[in-house]
Order: sequence, then structure tokens, then C-alpha cells
Amino acid sequence: MREVFQQELADVQDRLVRVADLVADAIDKATTAFTTQDVALAESVIADDHLIDELALGLDELAINILARQQPVARDLRIVVSALRISASLERMGDMAEHIAQLARYRFPEKVVPKSLRPTFKEMGRLDIAIARKLTRLLESEDPLLAEEIRNDDDRIDELHLSVFDQVLGETWKGAANDTVDATLASRYHERFADHAVSISKKVQYLQTGDWVLQAG
Amino acid sequence: MREVFQQELADVQDRLVRVADLVADAIDKATTAFTTQDVALAESVIADDHLIDELALGLDELAINILARQQPVARDLRIVVSALRISASLERMGDMAEHIAQLARYRFPEKVVPKSLRPTFKEMGRLDIAIARKLTRLLESEDPLLAEEIRNDDDRIDELHLSVFDQVLGETWKGAANDTVDATLASRYHERFADHAVSISKKVQYLQTGDWVLQAG
Repeated sequence: MREVFQQELADVQDRLVRVADLVADAIDKATTAFTTQDVALAESVIADDHLIDELALGLDELAINILARQQPVARDLRIVVSALRISASLERMGDMAEHIAQLARYRFPEKVVPKSLRPTFKEMGRLDIAIARKLTRLLESEDPLLAEEIRNDDDRIDELHLSVFDQVLGETWKGAANDTVDATLASRYHERFADHAVSISKKVQYLQTGDWVLQAG
Repeated sequence: MREVFQQELADVQDRLVRVADLVADAIDKATTAFTTQDVALAESVIADDHLIDELALGLDELAINILARQQPVARDLRIVVSALRISASLERMGDMAEHIAQLARYRFPEKVVPKSLRPTFKEMGRLDIAIARKLTRLLESEDPLLAEEIRNDDDRIDELHLSVFDQVLGETWKGAANDTVDATLASRYHERFADHAVSISKKVQYLQTGDWVLQAG
């Protein structure tokens, strides 16, 4: 019985890593589609988002089932409770990737953002991918150094997010209203993606310390 | 022992209602500040958001504590598990109200959106307030009719959200880039606020049926 229980907890953690992996692939494809106008790639992200949703749902059901049957305590309980929160954040990260892909698709065959903003979005995309890959490794290893790197990458994304507004609201901005809308939404989605990763990092920290902390604001 | 436990579960539900009440007050003030350029009101929303965060955090801690000590099953377990998800959504609804208030404050003493969009935002604000008040009553009563009304109000908000883009991207739009940014973000915050309410309604439904469903996308 005890062995079955430990196997189930390991299964929860494996599934978190699997969802995180799919999310990392999704943001990789979405940000690439966004910066290269690859509409087929954008469509594959949109078509595959349901896989993330279904895995997250199955993970929730497993976690609730474990709570009902095994009545875990201490670290075991923390694994299950944090999994419930982490799955919700991963699902939202998948949605952000999907939204970025949708922007790329709507605008096709036009480019999504004017030339002046492209280096900024390229860098935001690169950071979001790096964060997502680190997140997968963090969920596997619980290495606090990875959590710290994710926080640092998120700080950098926040700076880039603000710089998008500086550019859009600056004197030299020549974009049309649709460029302004796209840049605003895309920047927000990139930034929220990273916020959720930080929020998950805090839940991994909770696994170790038992200190529950708020979701990222 | 049993009586203490039932008292604790009642406490979880009372606290959810209290947080929802604060969220309803926050969105009421934030949307009023947004449409009337009342900077003092906007600042009060921003200053008070930490109260929502703290209550949500305390609620999470209570729920985890109940899981650890009481090992609830069946409906009792569903109350605790759904409370963990609902508190996260309520906290985000508070953040959306705060973001709307921040837009009002940044732009002061200017109005946040051009005249042509004001009726749309007034209506979105009215619906968000109505949704938040219904949500409080839903958490008290678990009345499925309220859940249905919330879904209908959310559908209407989604329409208004799309209509904001139609206006901003239309031929007659004369707004500057900052008007476009503000309208885009404000519309997104109003829409996300309502999405979270729908997501909470689904968790209330889960209390009754035991069918866990995904967060709103």
C-alpha cells in the first residue's frame, strides 16, 4: 500500500514535468512563429493546446484522488497541494503560448510587429523559452539555483515589457493602431508567461520549506 | 472533534465570501475611478489590494492545515480543494481591479479612454460589478442560477471586448498610441476579471457534482 502511494506521488511529479515539457515546446514554437511569420507553426501551437489542458486536468484528478484515498501528510501533502496549483499555472502558460501564436496567425502574411520592436520581442521570446526549459529542470531537480535564474530572467522580461511601452508611446513610433494593439497584447502575454513560471518556482520552494506564498501578482 | 472540523469548513466558506466581497468592492471602485477620473478612489483600490492578498493567503493556509489534520473525504474534501483554486482566482480578480485602477491613476488628470469608447467601458464595468456581486452570493448559496447568470454576463463582456478592438482598429479611430494601449489593456483586464468569475463558478459546480473541470481558458 505504502509502495503504491509512493508510486502515485512519483507519477504526480512525472506528469508535472511532462506538462512543463509540452509548455516549453509550445512557447518555443509560438515565439518562433511570432518572429518568423510561420503560420503553420502558429497553427500547430493552437491545435495542440488541448493536450496541455487535458494533461493538466488529468493531473488535478490524480492529485484529488490521492488526497481522498491516501490522506497524505507533511512533504507528501505538500507535493499534492503544490501540484494542484502548479498545474493551473502550467495550463495558463500554455494559453499564453497559444495567444502569441494566435497573434502571429491573425496578422499573417503581414509581420506581427514593426521592425523597430522586433529585437525586443526576439529577446523576450528567447527568455520565455529559456525560462520554460529551466522550469522543466526545476520540477525534476528542485534545484534552488534554477528558481533563482528564473526570477532573474523574469526581471529582465519585465524590463523589456516596460521598454515596449516606452517605444510604442515614444515620439518616433510610426505604427498603426493594429501594430500598437498587437505589441501591447504580445508584450503582456510574454510577461505573464514568465510570471507564471516564477509563481511555480515559489511552489517548488514551498515543497522544501513548507512556507506557502502568494501567487505572483 | 467532528464539530471542530465542521466549524473549520464553515470558516473556509465564510472566508471565501469575505474575500469575494472585498473583490466586489475593489472592482466597483476601480471601474468607477476609471470612468470618472477619480484618482483618490483609484489610489484606495491600489492601497487595499494587499488585504485581498493576505486574506487569500490565510485561506490557503487554513485549507492546507485542514487537509493535514482532518483528512477530509467526499464533499468535505471538495470544499477544501475547491477553496484552494477559488482563492487563487479571487486574488487574480483583485489584481485585475488594481490594474484598472492603475490605468486610471497613470492617466490622471486626463481621461483614460477617448469619448467614443466610454459607453463600452461603462457597460463592461457595470457587468464586472454585477458579476462580482453575484459571485459573492453564489459562494454563499451555491445557487446554480447565479452561476448561469455569471456565464451570460461573461458572454456579454466577451462581445464588448471584441467591440473595443473593432473600434480601435476601425476607420474612425482617432486615438493616439497611448489611447490605443490603454483601451487594449483595460479591455483585457475587464475581460479577464469576468473569466476568473466563470472559473470560480465551475469550482462551485464541482462542489455539488464532483466533476472537476478546467480553469477558464
